[in-house]
Amino acid sequence: MAGASFLHSLMTPQSIAIVGASNNPMKMGTMHALSILNDGFTGNFYPVHPTEKTVLGHKAYTSPQDLPETPDLAIFVLPSKHLLPLFEAFGRIGTKYAIIITAGFKEIGEDGIRQEEELSAVARKYGIRFIGPNCMGLINREISLNTTVVPIKSKPGKLGLISQSGTYVAQTIPYLEKRGIHYSKAFSVGNEADVNIIDVLEYLGEDDQTAAISMYIETIRDVPRFLDVAAKITPYKPVFAQYVGGSEAGGRAGLSHTGAMAGKDYLYEGLFCQAGVIRVKSVEELYGLGAALSEQPRIKGNRIAILTNSGGPGSAIADTCERYGCQVPPFSPSLQEKIRPLIPPHAPCGNPVDLTFSMDARLMTDTIPEIIMDSGEVDGLIMHGAMSTGFMKAVHPHVSQMMQNVSLSEMLSQMERDLSKTVRRPYEHGIPLVLSSFFDREDQYTKDFEDAGIPVFDAPEKAARAMAAMAQYHVIQNRPKQQPPVLPGAEQEAEEIIQKAIQNGQKTLDEFAAKRLLAAYKIPVPEERVVNSLEELFENIEFISFPIVLKANHPEILHKTEKGLVCLNVETMEGAQNAYKTIQDRAGRHVPVILGEMIHGERELLVGIAEDEQFGYCIAFGIGGILTEALKDIVYRVAPVSEIEAGHMIREIQTKNLLESYRGMLPVNKDAVVRLISRVSQIPFIHPEIREIDINPVIISGDSPLAADALVLLK
Amino acid sequence: MAGASFLHSLMTPQSIAIVGASNNPMKMGTMHALSILNDGFTGNFYPVHPTEKTVLGHKAYTSPQDLPETPDLAIFVLPSKHLLPLFEAFGRIGTKYAIIITAGFKEIGEDGIRQEEELSAVARKYGIRFIGPNCMGLINREISLNTTVVPIKSKPGKLGLISQSGTYVAQTIPYLEKRGIHYSKAFSVGNEADVNIIDVLEYLGEDDQTAAISMYIETIRDVPRFLDVAAKITPYKPVFAQYVGGSEAGGRAGLSHTGAMAGKDYLYEGLFCQAGVIRVKSVEELYGLGAALSEQPRIKGNRIAILTNSGGPGSAIADTCERYGCQVPPFSPSLQEKIRPLIPPHAPCGNPVDLTFSMDARLMTDTIPEIIMDSGEVDGLIMHGAMSTGFMKAVHPHVSQMMQNVSLSEMLSQMERDLSKTVRRPYEHGIPLVLSSFFDREDQYTKDFEDAGIPVFDAPEKAARAMAAMAQYHVIQNRPKQQPPVLPGAEQEAEEIIQKAIQNGQKTLDEFAAKRLLAAYKIPVPEERVVNSLEELFENIEFISFPIVLKANHPEILHKTEKGLVCLNVETMEGAQNAYKTIQDRAGRHVPVILGEMIHGERELLVGIAEDEQFGYCIAFGIGGILTEALKDIVYRVAPVSEIEAGHMIREIQTKNLLESYRGMLPVNKDAVVRLISRVSQIPFIHPEIREIDINPVIISGDSPLAADALVLLK
Repeated sequence: MAGASFLHSLMTPQSIAIVGASNNPMKMGTMHALSILNDGFTGNFYPVHPTEKTVLGHKAYTSPQDLPETPDLAIFVLPSKHLLPLFEAFGRIGTKYAIIITAGFKEIGEDGIRQEEELSAVARKYGIRFIGPNCMGLINREISLNTTVVPIKSKPGKLGLISQSGTYVAQTIPYLEKRGIHYSKAFSVGNEADVNIIDVLEYLGEDDQTAAISMYIETIRDVPRFLDVAAKITPYKPVFAQYVGGSEAGGRAGLSHTGAMAGKDYLYEGLFCQAGVIRVKSVEELYGLGAALSEQPRIKGNRIAILTNSGGPGSAIADTCERYGCQVPPFSPSLQEKIRPLIPPHAPCGNPVDLTFSMDARLMTDTIPEIIMDSGEVDGLIMHGAMSTGFMKAVHPHVSQMMQNVSLSEMLSQMERDLSKTVRRPYEHGIPLVLSSFFDREDQYTKDFEDAGIPVFDAPEKAARAMAAMAQYHVIQNRPKQQPPVLPGAEQEAEEIIQKAIQNGQKTLDEFAAKRLLAAYKIPVPEERVVNSLEELFENIEFISFPIVLKANHPEILHKTEKGLVCLNVETMEGAQNAYKTIQDRAGRHVPVILGEMIHGERELLVGIAEDEQFGYCIAFGIGGILTEALKDIVYRVAPVSEIEAGHMIREIQTKNLLESYRGMLPVNKDAVVRLISRVSQIPFIHPEIREIDINPVIISGDSPLAADALVLLK
Repeated sequence: MAGASFLHSLMTPQSIAIVGASNNPMKMGTMHALSILNDGFTGNFYPVHPTEKTVLGHKAYTSPQDLPETPDLAIFVLPSKHLLPLFEAFGRIGTKYAIIITAGFKEIGEDGIRQEEELSAVARKYGIRFIGPNCMGLINREISLNTTVVPIKSKPGKLGLISQSGTYVAQTIPYLEKRGIHYSKAFSVGNEADVNIIDVLEYLGEDDQTAAISMYIETIRDVPRFLDVAAKITPYKPVFAQYVGGSEAGGRAGLSHTGAMAGKDYLYEGLFCQAGVIRVKSVEELYGLGAALSEQPRIKGNRIAILTNSGGPGSAIADTCERYGCQVPPFSPSLQEKIRPLIPPHAPCGNPVDLTFSMDARLMTDTIPEIIMDSGEVDGLIMHGAMSTGFMKAVHPHVSQMMQNVSLSEMLSQMERDLSKTVRRPYEHGIPLVLSSFFDREDQYTKDFEDAGIPVFDAPEKAARAMAAMAQYHVIQNRPKQQPPVLPGAEQEAEEIIQKAIQNGQKTLDEFAAKRLLAAYKIPVPEERVVNSLEELFENIEFISFPIVLKANHPEILHKTEKGLVCLNVETMEGAQNAYKTIQDRAGRHVPVILGEMIHGERELLVGIAEDEQFGYCIAFGIGGILTEALKDIVYRVAPVSEIEAGHMIREIQTKNLLESYRGMLPVNKDAVVRLISRVSQIPFIHPEIREIDINPVIISGDSPLAADALVLLK
């Protein structure tokens, strides 16, 4: 892909020029330069400085024209007012890639927006691709390139980081090191004047060094492309996202008619599900889960074994696993028999296995994990309490008084054990291993595990959460492949209904027309006629069998139930006549009346589609009818959706049990619901005059959905 | 209280004897002794050892009889087989308090249970109160007493810890220190053969050094006492609990008929709500939230200000605050005008206030917090990004190369600032302050804040969660006071109904009798008659107005709807006759038939009460009717409940919107529902022959609840 290849070039320069570095170590520009020079970059380095002869021991150049070669990458950390001429000068000498750390652009308002546009214009003129402005730089561990201000001491890893907030890939470097979270590449994308998070996502999706991707997202500017790119990556590489709606006005506010409370947050939720992206609710999860999945082998199911040296953490792990949908299956008698002789007589061995307080480290790190992984009874293993030097370091202040002839390092050396077999075991068995320990990297085990790719979390619940994320990704990875639906041609009847309404100056179809339009696309609707007089009522009533429903049919009359313009369950001809007259009276004018079969069904759903200025058309599915507002149980997708995707939607609502068999009702015909959702999701693409469709309720009659009421809004 | 005073004595010994310590520093007993000797205990210390003349430099004694005084407290760390004679020997010399670290009792099965019983018998004989066995010891920072194996280096704090898992108050000591979590007292209660977590809760509730309490719970053996004790404490001292159902068989399994899926976990959930205990889902929250509430002033509302130096974390804090029910209100124009000149021109100042990357530490730590706290517009303040030496330490490896004449400590000293005013500010304003920072205690700010009682969390979301817990506690603290309901005397009609059923050998009341019983306690039921023949049908039908419902009435016929033994909405005399015959036919025998008014209502609730072997009678309230199983939206309480408590219940269900006005329906008369719940909750206490009452549905007719169906099971 184009996106991936240019970013590969930007990420692997052989020569770098920097503007804004000096010999003052407390200046930001200098700090960026120091990271490049000290963290292992082996290419050529050219400081550009107006007055200094050398910067950081390297010959400095007054302007880009003076450079001995055209640098592959230019980095700008100078004040924004000086930026543009220098940026253009690099363009002139042929530099094709840049990182603009400098702030003071779009984020400061009008002046900045204009400056950013000028920047982009220059970039286009010279064919420069750039990251920023207003970013913290990027990191490529593959060539030891660190352009942030913070030194990196840890080893490279396999997690790719993308952030719209610079803090999360720069100031957090020491935080990540202390937690043993290793990464391959990291991007602070800043204002995304050129390169945006989707470009980076696409690049990391193809990057061999990157096995999982974590994104901090404040807004997605091109939703369809994000969906397209992410959906292609997630079947083979896990992607995590945190979205907090920070910079988006009304992140939690509502979207209009679509049945309920679609705010941006709900649309993002749907988008992530649709793309197979795992959404997290904290930056700790973003890093921790991403790192765990980047290092460990893929899990093959959701059966988790727990090995602990203390009951409390073991129970907490089991509880959290179950809370997140994993199983903690009791071990078979034969497996328990193998473990039983190894542990204290009455210690639990049925999963969790509780070693109780044991000093035999080999049991926890080797013997029992091997037995469990060999059993075939579980898909993942979580261990709590493996530790070596951490405990000794903690007790040393007291113990040392008695052992003056033994140094701490001698004591610690006695605790050392070779974990190389242990850390290989998950890969050999294809069974992921995750640990929790209250001892951090001061404990040699924690350090050894983390540096070998075995995640160690500082609490039992977090280890369980990571394993659950693995199981969640297993489900994503095994979702059936799907193609976007192939839009059918426009149905003539539908086209006529819309054109007639437009000619009438309507912004809304009347209910009868709305349902005729739906019926034209094979959406099940009740048998209905429209009548304009008592005579027509008599003529048409024989085509509908009692009990029937009568309601006013007018594009400008909404909320008919509340206005008493709907008469349900009419059982006789006389009743129908009375109902007709009542509606005529109440409507206050000569409105047409729909005569329809009465649909019975205790379950009411909703299906709607509406246009969002950022997401485009989004399809909604959820619980409808009188429960709509009370339950607010609705999920969203970017439209159109295939039947497979619609199938995901109906499994995602909280109260999905309502679609099953209970109290003598049939299970809902899910195929029919899924067809209905997919078809509705396509209609505005066939008829772009449609702004919104709102079908509520979709009544489940017997086991099948019927669009009992429908509203169609035009643009 | 008795509980509190004896534990005060146990916690403040002037002399301690220990059995099991030696001069081998790698033995557990020695480690316990070393903690007592080195962590500041100033009383007398007496090792008891069979052979050694001195232990850890202190004269050792062969047996308790040889001791120069009666020690206040004896600690046992010897193998269980040797314990009993020594324990008894201490009893004989008059020692009244003990900690039994030794394991190998109840937790190992039958032999252990017997041994534990013997232990308790000896304790009773000599009036010894003891913690354990099978525990990790306790900590009292007030007298610098540490009886665990792990040295304590941190300063004392105000959080009290109680744990049924030893790990959580011993192995976690270094973990807590690294997170700046300070505590006053900590208890590992072990097997609770004598002192249990409720005793300790009661003690910490009265302890002046303890301002908040965190409990790790695997089971509560005396639920009514826990409720009583906790409910007395929580109005003035916050209590947190983690319950993971570890040791309880069937922690997630179901309780019988009560409408739905009451498992232990749901009962605990209800118990904690009832007691005002804040339940947490991880040990990290248990410690972190507990510590935050133990140190900071009480919040007075839920309006939160956010001050950050980076947009990402600011947004994450805002999002998390709102997710947990707090507000992040926009600042007034006048407040914004005060802040505006202090920050970069286009930086947000409307809440969150985003300083952007700023090197002026005073702005974040002093100037702006003062302005915000003075404004009166918020109840709490969260800050992200305050840091001093942490960043410098991180960049030092690079920068130091250029500044060989400046040492790290010199550089760091330039970053030092006096925070003494900052840390006092929350107490002066009565506005709590919580921080998040990616820099741990290596950063001087983090250390200074934490040691002054300002919590610093390692992620923005956690700081927000802590502030939300403060707001949650504010609500708990302001709950109206309540008294347990005063049980009315038994109604004669109810008594007769029950006695008649018992005489008939019934285990179930028939539906008519069940509702008569409810009606006797003023629970609204439909107008009903029972008829045994067509003649009686004709005689009685005039007392009920059409439409009516007919159903079979027999104590042994359950699931009447599924069996076709219920005819709803019968509108005519002829219909009633047919319905009667149909029921007679289907029931296959001459069963009585209930003739009742047809209750209409779109909303169906359930109220039930059942007996759990551990919790006693528990009352359930939730969504009933056809949605019961689908929504599983039910909350529980230990019965009986006052109307105030029932009010909490109806506000706690997920779909509480169903009780409000929507789609033209009236809001439910909550007073009537609350009365109904409270009354039902008392009935089995008036009639202990009742095992279970299940009212489902309670139909909301108009706005008022009516018990449309009822099942009463007898013991």
